[in-house]
Amino acid sequence: MLIVHDNTESGNAYKVRLILSLLELDYKTIQYDVTKGETRTEDYLSNINKNGRIPVLQFEDGRLLAESNAILYYMAQDTKYFPTDTWQQAKIMEWLCFEQYSHEPFVAVAKFILTMLPKDTPRRAEIPTLHEKGYAALQIMEDALVENDYLVGDSMTIADIALYAYTHKAQMGDFDMSRFPAIARWCERIEDEPNYIKMF
Amino acid sequence: MLIVHDNTESGNAYKVRLILSLLELDYKTIQYDVTKGETRTEDYLSNINKNGRIPVLQFEDGRLLAESNAILYYMAQDTKYFPTDTWQQAKIMEWLCFEQYSHEPFVAVAKFILTMLPKDTPRRAEIPTLHEKGYAALQIMEDALVENDYLVGDSMTIADIALYAYTHKAQMGDFDMSRFPAIARWCERIEDEPNYIKMF
Repeated sequence: MLIVHDNTESGNAYKVRLILSLLELDYKTIQYDVTKGETRTEDYLSNINKNGRIPVLQFEDGRLLAESNAILYYMAQDTKYFPTDTWQQAKIMEWLCFEQYSHEPFVAVAKFILTMLPKDTPRRAEIPTLHEKGYAALQIMEDALVENDYLVGDSMTIADIALYAYTHKAQMGDFDMSRFPAIARWCERIEDEPNYIKMF
Repeated sequence: MLIVHDNTESGNAYKVRLILSLLELDYKTIQYDVTKGETRTEDYLSNINKNGRIPVLQFEDGRLLAESNAILYYMAQDTKYFPTDTWQQAKIMEWLCFEQYSHEPFVAVAKFILTMLPKDTPRRAEIPTLHEKGYAALQIMEDALVENDYLVGDSMTIADIALYAYTHKAQMGDFDMSRFPAIARWCERIEDEPNYIKMF
């Protein structure tokens, strides 16, 4: 059976559980508490991921694949979540890169600081900058979703799965999501997908 | 003709010029000085990239593609730089995500702070953290390249192009690259590739 090296608080790990559920694939999870360094142990670094991060997807034959968006790419091959048109594929890649570089480091990190760290953490000083950059990323999504039901093409792809993960929990990082009605409607469309599972 | 919306100091933009050269495709460049906000003008945001970044590749029919690694993905389709085996493709995606999330934000940003900003910039305080995380990323590459000539498979792919861009200029961010002999040999292999072009 597939094994997800997982953390329930992680939107990146949730992307993996969500695609596996949408594809009706069985899997089990192994949980790691990243705040206790459980993905930085010698055993984890040697045997699961040298980069010390979750999620990692482990196949029955032992192969390991890290990086949530790489896992989405691989699992979605030959499914409706990854179109065959190479220009649409390129636009999906553009969104996946956007997510990792211009969205997750702000939207996800604000949530992490406000929900996972002690209330007196000095990292709360980062919140105004994280909000400024996170709102910019969310506005780019909003502008795209005013015009289209999904980020690429006319149906749900791994671009939507990747961006949905942290966007639909952005309010946990104190983002005011009432500013983004097109994002709200897009979240509802994703949540209506057969075999959708919640993050928590 | 293809147009690269470009900045000569950017490793991300260099990835695009390098793949176009390797594929013997003609292109012209339009230069933007990011330190002067030239990618944040109303015109640029409206007509080239809402995310205000270079590089962007513009096709003859007007289509625009942002995100260096998405551009690599699209341009390498049906070439030797992107294998047909889907597991190898997945491992390439893993490296592309690693580059954007665990390598570029440290290795490239150290170079940016030390070469593009004034010598008295307060951002120099970030250098120790950038070095710690950048060295960790470089060590992961070194470990992979001790065992293999290229990051994925037996020949050069877009994973190598993506990682090469900032790695081969890491010394400009004060990284001591003498620690990484396997990376040095890998850089030489890439530089021996027909139609290779230098960054500067």
